[in-house]
Amino acid sequence: MNIVFTFRPPRKLQEQLRERFPEEEFLYYKSIDEADKLHTAEVIVTFGGDLTAEHISACKELKWIMAASAGIENMPVEAIAERNILVTNARGIHKIPMAEFTMGYMLNHVKRFPELQELQSEGVWNKRLPLEELAGKQLLVIGTGAIGSEIARLALAFRMDTIGVNRSGSPNEQFDEVYTVDQLLDVLPLADFVVAVLPSTEETKFLLEKEHFQAMKKTAAFINIGRGDLVEESVLIEALDNEEIARAYLDVFIDEPLPADHPFWSQERLTVTPHISSITSKYVPRAMDIFSFNLDVYKRGEEGYKNKVDIDRGY
Amino acid sequence: MNIVFTFRPPRKLQEQLRERFPEEEFLYYKSIDEADKLHTAEVIVTFGGDLTAEHISACKELKWIMAASAGIENMPVEAIAERNILVTNARGIHKIPMAEFTMGYMLNHVKRFPELQELQSEGVWNKRLPLEELAGKQLLVIGTGAIGSEIARLALAFRMDTIGVNRSGSPNEQFDEVYTVDQLLDVLPLADFVVAVLPSTEETKFLLEKEHFQAMKKTAAFINIGRGDLVEESVLIEALDNEEIARAYLDVFIDEPLPADHPFWSQERLTVTPHISSITSKYVPRAMDIFSFNLDVYKRGEEGYKNKVDIDRGY
Repeated sequence: MNIVFTFRPPRKLQEQLRERFPEEEFLYYKSIDEADKLHTAEVIVTFGGDLTAEHISACKELKWIMAASAGIENMPVEAIAERNILVTNARGIHKIPMAEFTMGYMLNHVKRFPELQELQSEGVWNKRLPLEELAGKQLLVIGTGAIGSEIARLALAFRMDTIGVNRSGSPNEQFDEVYTVDQLLDVLPLADFVVAVLPSTEETKFLLEKEHFQAMKKTAAFINIGRGDLVEESVLIEALDNEEIARAYLDVFIDEPLPADHPFWSQERLTVTPHISSITSKYVPRAMDIFSFNLDVYKRGEEGYKNKVDIDRGY
Repeated sequence: MNIVFTFRPPRKLQEQLRERFPEEEFLYYKSIDEADKLHTAEVIVTFGGDLTAEHISACKELKWIMAASAGIENMPVEAIAERNILVTNARGIHKIPMAEFTMGYMLNHVKRFPELQELQSEGVWNKRLPLEELAGKQLLVIGTGAIGSEIARLALAFRMDTIGVNRSGSPNEQFDEVYTVDQLLDVLPLADFVVAVLPSTEETKFLLEKEHFQAMKKTAAFINIGRGDLVEESVLIEALDNEEIARAYLDVFIDEPLPADHPFWSQERLTVTPHISSITSKYVPRAMDIFSFNLDVYKRGEEGYKNKVDIDRGY
């Protein structure tokens, strides 16, 4: 069968796939636009964001889409559901890098590393910079899935208190307490750090509003590593301008790449990173591990896929 | 009895001491030079570094020195030992802030936060910055006491491998393996991070030499939060100039404050911080907890002091 990649994995990973599946035809392209044999694909492996309904209808043989990403919000859901095409993703491989990234910025925040760097560049020895500790601070994680739980696990190691928020309020061992989304306004005032790690769905779109930021501590830091459309940009800018929170760390945005003239770049008390929290040198190897596992399952015609996506729920 | 402080704790802590020990005379001074009643002291509470042999001989009533710090290397050891003066310190209260600080710089290193900040200031969206993970990386901690163990405990939570080095090679539950100082050259090549957290003693002075940095990975980061005289400054500058290691993070120096014209300030691949890793808003309250506990013991004439220092060993 033809397996079309709309990105090029490192040569070493290509060799591993060829050795493990010598009878399959792997076709690697730099992008979907260059994939001249896309229409022959029984399987498409993509980072997501490039597939349209036209692609789906042109690919008569297509049975399986492997998204080497977590969210599938840009996929042509109806066209996929209509043909009953299998969709799998790479969820689970994001938790380690994203949790490290989040803990990194939390430490950066309490330890004032950017200010220490500034002092160094000025040649100033100042022991009076008031550093804080994560120990004893309250972490609120909105979204208690694999990534949120990994963040909470590390936060507990740092002797933080952890509150989780999810749809149902169902408990989770990494969190001291879990509340429902409806209770968000009640628990936001407790948090020193509010970390959002939600997928983009109809329910989460613009979930955080003006009142939510007003409910947070003025000393709180807000970290969004989930999806940009959790909050209207104007709401966030207002919260920062009005000093309703101390700082925001945003890795995700409504428009990505963030346009060059966007006010976020120079917004005070805002750290912008280029949707990079999950991306490390281990990302593609781990995604290919999941793909290889599932390709075995697919070839044997069995069930038991890792990370099968419920296309209607959106994750 | 007269208890002389050569620093001023926050008013709230002064009140707590007065309430708990109403019969004692607490005298607070901004510095030892302003302490006009120093000679009346039965107890001196100091951050360390200010006491001389002359002070000791002038204080005829002195029975106990409480150092609200960890190291006592600047104390007039002979004068203290001669009079058999009790010395206690604040070791143990450093482990939480110092371990957080260390994990913070390790994350800062693999996540390239300073470069991400630079990209933001330039308004550049660059997802290709090669971020790494702590997970799977090898941490070597030289000094497996309370602070080193706390660093290793957090590192294990981050799925790192941990090697400890101490005098005897005696095992410690937070470390996968522990080696002796004599084996240092054998284990340095394994480490992605080398963290030094040793007190200053005759045995640790200039312990790390040229050959030790040459034995490290070129990609290794060296973090010193112990004492500055662990390594000659010229040795470290050479190691950085020759790119024998990737970066150094130094919180401690042979001369503190680091002189304004010192080459370290602008040394490439070197982060300088002002001996601040242990200092947070919780520092003095925790030190006063230890002092209060010991003052109870002292008044009852019992044994069982917290953090009694063996003045001859130096810690």
